Amino acid sequence: MTHDSRISFASDYLEGAHPRILERLAETNMVQTAGYGTDEFSEDARNRIREAIGVPDAEIHFLIGGTQTNATVIDAMLKPYEGVIAADTGHISLHEAGAIEFGGHKVLQIPGTNGKLAAADVQALLAGYQADENRDHMVKPGLLYISQPTEYGTLYSLAELTELSEIAHKGGIPLFVDGARLAYALAADENDVTLKDLARLTDVFYIGGTKCGALLGEAVVFPKKGTVPHFFTIVKQHGALLAKGRATALQFSTLFTDGLYEELGRNGIDAANRIRAALREKGYTLALDAPTNQIFLLLTDKEIERLEQHVILGFWEKQGDKTIMRIATSWATTKEHVDYLLSIL
Amino acid sequence: MTHDSRISFASDYLEGAHPRILERLAETNMVQTAGYGTDEFSEDARNRIREAIGVPDAEIHFLIGGTQTNATVIDAMLKPYEGVIAADTGHISLHEAGAIEFGGHKVLQIPGTNGKLAAADVQALLAGYQADENRDHMVKPGLLYISQPTEYGTLYSLAELTELSEIAHKGGIPLFVDGARLAYALAADENDVTLKDLARLTDVFYIGGTKCGALLGEAVVFPKKGTVPHFFTIVKQHGALLAKGRATALQFSTLFTDGLYEELGRNGIDAANRIRAALREKGYTLALDAPTNQIFLLLTDKEIERLEQHVILGFWEKQGDKTIMRIATSWATTKEHVDYLLSIL
Amino acid sequence: MTHDSRISFASDYLEGAHPRILERLAETNMVQTAGYGTDEFSEDARNRIREAIGVPDAEIHFLIGGTQTNATVIDAMLKPYEGVIAADTGHISLHEAGAIEFGGHKVLQIPGTNGKLAAADVQALLAGYQADENRDHMVKPGLLYISQPTEYGTLYSLAELTELSEIAHKGGIPLFVDGARLAYALAADENDVTLKDLARLTDVFYIGGTKCGALLGEAVVFPKKGTVPHFFTIVKQHGALLAKGRATALQFSTLFTDGLYEELGRNGIDAANRIRAALREKGYTLALDAPTNQIFLLLTDKEIERLEQHVILGFWEKQGDKTIMRIATSWATTKEHVDYLLSIL
Amino acid sequence: MTHDSRISFASDYLEGAHPRILERLAETNMVQTAGYGTDEFSEDARNRIREAIGVPDAEIHFLIGGTQTNATVIDAMLKPYEGVIAADTGHISLHEAGAIEFGGHKVLQIPGTNGKLAAADVQALLAGYQADENRDHMVKPGLLYISQPTEYGTLYSLAELTELSEIAHKGGIPLFVDGARLAYALAADENDVTLKDLARLTDVFYIGGTKCGALLGEAVVFPKKGTVPHFFTIVKQHGALLAKGRATALQFSTLFTDGLYEELGRNGIDAANRIRAALREKGYTLALDAPTNQIFLLLTDKEIERLEQHVILGFWEKQGDKTIMRIATSWATTKEHVDYLLSIL
Repeated sequence: MTHDSRISFASDYLEGAHPRILERLAETNMVQTAGYGTDEFSEDARNRIREAIGVPDAEIHFLIGGTQTNATVIDAMLKPYEGVIAADTGHISLHEAGAIEFGGHKVLQIPGTNGKLAAADVQALLAGYQADENRDHMVKPGLLYISQPTEYGTLYSLAELTELSEIAHKGGIPLFVDGARLAYALAADENDVTLKDLARLTDVFYIGGTKCGALLGEAVVFPKKGTVPHFFTIVKQHGALLAKGRATALQFSTLFTDGLYEELGRNGIDAANRIRAALREKGYTLALDAPTNQIFLLLTDKEIERLEQHVILGFWEKQGDKTIMRIATSWATTKEHVDYLLSIL
Repeated sequence: MTHDSRISFASDYLEGAHPRILERLAETNMVQTAGYGTDEFSEDARNRIREAIGVPDAEIHFLIGGTQTNATVIDAMLKPYEGVIAADTGHISLHEAGAIEFGGHKVLQIPGTNGKLAAADVQALLAGYQADENRDHMVKPGLLYISQPTEYGTLYSLAELTELSEIAHKGGIPLFVDGARLAYALAADENDVTLKDLARLTDVFYIGGTKCGALLGEAVVFPKKGTVPHFFTIVKQHGALLAKGRATALQFSTLFTDGLYEELGRNGIDAANRIRAALREKGYTLALDAPTNQIFLLLTDKEIERLEQHVILGFWEKQGDKTIMRIATSWATTKEHVDYLLSIL
Repeated sequence: MTHDSRISFASDYLEGAHPRILERLAETNMVQTAGYGTDEFSEDARNRIREAIGVPDAEIHFLIGGTQTNATVIDAMLKPYEGVIAADTGHISLHEAGAIEFGGHKVLQIPGTNGKLAAADVQALLAGYQADENRDHMVKPGLLYISQPTEYGTLYSLAELTELSEIAHKGGIPLFVDGARLAYALAADENDVTLKDLARLTDVFYIGGTKCGALLGEAVVFPKKGTVPHFFTIVKQHGALLAKGRATALQFSTLFTDGLYEELGRNGIDAANRIRAALREKGYTLALDAPTNQIFLLLTDKEIERLEQHVILGFWEKQGDKTIMRIATSWATTKEHVDYLLSIL
Repeated sequence: MTHDSRISFASDYLEGAHPRILERLAETNMVQTAGYGTDEFSEDARNRIREAIGVPDAEIHFLIGGTQTNATVIDAMLKPYEGVIAADTGHISLHEAGAIEFGGHKVLQIPGTNGKLAAADVQALLAGYQADENRDHMVKPGLLYISQPTEYGTLYSLAELTELSEIAHKGGIPLFVDGARLAYALAADENDVTLKDLARLTDVFYIGGTKCGALLGEAVVFPKKGTVPHFFTIVKQHGALLAKGRATALQFSTLFTDGLYEELGRNGIDAANRIRAALREKGYTLALDAPTNQIFLLLTDKEIERLEQHVILGFWEKQGDKTIMRIATSWATTKEHVDYLLSIL
């Protein structure tokens, strides 16, 4: 068993889970519980999230991973003849191996800017569909999907989110926010969108666990209970129902105790901010300006070779004769790791 | 948060995970690993399973739960116009909320006996299809699915498994064994089917984790590497790919260290055997004779009421004016729990 | 190009279309019409059917073939997690190559008697689902499918149809009647179910064209307009929308002019009745007693060999050392054909 | 029943079928044939097409409409995890109501130019997929789809088609050509691609009937027999199998007798050429330069209003304050219709 001993900044899912989560799993390990999310730990986790989002009767389900959650929610929200609007760089557009199409739905892709959809473009798509004489031969837009933060680490402001929500609802379609990295959005300096805003402006969103301190798990929130009848069965049909609901619920229960979720998001942001400041100071070129836990650097092959003698970076994409590499921080990034990275930049 | 303090025998997924698994997760928690099963823990777990099944280059993937695993494997093994043969009581026939049909495939149901398929019935279905003048208008049988143990706790003997394997392969279709509770099959007194037999006789099978000591996780084994090209992408498309592959791999690595998987199966069987002996001695009626960790009791309403003052049993089904209740033991059943149950029988 | 010159009774789709249909296609051939069923011929055909069923604002769509119609209607009526109840001998259960599963739905098969579902069995399935503690893990029954006449030529009486309709509606699910051979049901001596009854008791049914005098085409009737929003788009998505809607509409317009549909059904029934009477008189064994245009005969190999020197029969299935062969009459069966068949019996 | 008496140029599916087709249907109407394309008329039609494409053992199936044919062929050619490359203006991308996604596949859309894909763009997509480190998380390109002529009436030259074929095959994927309007490609003045070229360069293509003289019907051609095992069953599963195969086969048999298909294509092209010449002469603005049976005109609202007092044009799309309207000619366009149109331009 070989092991690469370099410190890695390649992604935000490099370590296991926050230690308190493992402690909690161990403490409760031999408690017997009912299955499939009907247990007391699941209810406790739901209640903590309900409080955090300010909606006492929100409907909450714990799923396992991001692609699964997106596919299950999107299939549940759409009619068979409907498609989901997303940025062409959205996770569901590119990196889910066709999971949305496997469920029978088209992703209606709109070019985004640094991962973000412009309200005007969504509006134009909806209006274009309504105005098209052939719309009965076309996939009907049935859901608006965005990520907060986006796959590029950028954020929707409250004003932008409000506008998208209004456009969607005026167009008769619901809004779904993918929060796989939501902790890092909530903690970002420039962020002005709270969990309560998400609950108010969306029809369904999920609070990411896997990339935000949990071993695995995503919490799907329907602010309005009963939005999708038989959602439990849909989750089961998608293979997304855990027999031991405690496995995810205990993680979210822990994350939503004593402000841990906020704390972990803050850790990722603080680390990223330190790195960003150093990069700017040292004259590195950032490929885009994003305020969350992902940093996209434009590097020459030589620079990459030098840096990767010491740390592992994430490959993003080629850009001419340079390469965009990703530095991702997370709940697990330590001060020592950042110090080390700064020392070699 | 209310809690039912009675001891439960309702299912085999009541507790968390074997403590060594949680210890192992904690010990390795801050080790940084690559994602999606490409890490060293995943490779270690694969190697341990390869050794246990005696196939050094077997292809192994770690998925999360039973329904998900069945749907992913079945979709991967079938052509779009093919269906999967299963007992009418099979998990995929009844209790997966249509996950197989969601993937586009018909379950070709055959009546079973106590959950088991008879070789002659499989043979008849295959021959009937071949002889049918309208077969091109019919779903082609494309895979044989059985469970070991079955949903009723019964076992296929080595002779029976060999015969089913031969019939399937002569008929040009592969054999898939669902091993959600495999540990309890392997440990049963009357069992004569080993992991090596499964690797030799099947085209794909899975080793159950969720019900056999893990918090979650199922290990899919293709004895022949490359059986399904691009299986990784199919797993991803089904939302069954974990970002942190370590989460399942470390559990299987632990289960396949120092014979823990066998030991946990034995624990469930020993407990079930003690209970079965006591039930027979006290004159209870067993609804069927099964040698693994599930016991099906025929009880009157009055008997149920009395017993459930002390312990939780699992409801199975009504039978006339009586009810079949399930007692399930597991890796986690303690001597004290069994003593207590025997004391109230 | 070889041609079998024997007269065939193998099926009811041996000839083209009733000559008046071809005349009508020729007369109107160069009239320019709008596409996709928005033309005047389609509206005319719809109006004629509306009058025949006694529902002035019924919603009617013309599709092309039986499997396509079943799949489109069933997909349109079901939620993704629902299945359709059908007899195990139903066309959708056996002979549609998995078209229903391709759309993601399970066929919840119930054993029938001579192709018919018993109301008590449907009731039991619905009640069993509701009573099952695990129903949220199961496919929800979402539609009741029957055929009139059935695949075996048998009929539901008005009392039986009424009971099935009531059971379905009490259970919260709609009723769909497959009328691929409806003309032969309507014309049968013992029939007491009218088109108006179908419109009153079902949620959707179709009037068969292909086997009842048309070259192709099936008329889907929703007695209640708007039952399925965007059904047009669902039809398109299923590849079931004709660019030239006239091609099917003109056929139904003709069939529903001057009582042609009834007349053609009567022709098939009269022919079948003459043949049945002769078979009984001559001591042949009918495999089942059905009053429509299909006759199932139990024959020895020797009898088959002798008869097939003169006419073509349809193979149905083996039964011990004998064989069930089908004689099908139709709108196209002539007195001469029947005379000839009787002469050789 | 109201009728718009204006002459229409709105589409190429306005009239019924070429009269010889209806005659042929009438002449053979009472001949009894076997079902599902196993009849002598189907074999005759297949043989005529085999001769026309110069491949004596090509596999040929008759389906009914364009969307159905595209969906059936694409589903048959792709693995579940694969997608189909198409122009963003392709029929499957826009106007098939999600039929491809209904079958579980993503349309990998590439911007086209006047409906045509550039070989370099296809090459870049294939190379990009191969180079992407995350390709196992992505939809694998599995088929290249183009239309000849395109939805905009443009044509691929033999050189272009050859290059696309080579790029696809070098990339390990097959090439599918949608020939819904193929007659008008074959007859165009600038066309240099023959049926034999299509059979040589593609893996599957279809010869359009519905828009080229038939009432309905599309002939799917696999130059290499057995390309897709069990294609018949796949057709059935898609609801695309006609009971009366003669209904489509007789039409193709007629179209491929005495050069009728070429003749009908020529009729459409001659009419279009006359109209194009007149439009240019009179100073109208053509929105694009296409050599087949569709003409796209850029008109002001006032011009449209004036013209539509006399003839019906097809709405295409808005372009600023003007509108692109379509004039489509066809096999059915008469000299008188064109004369009339020219008189009012």
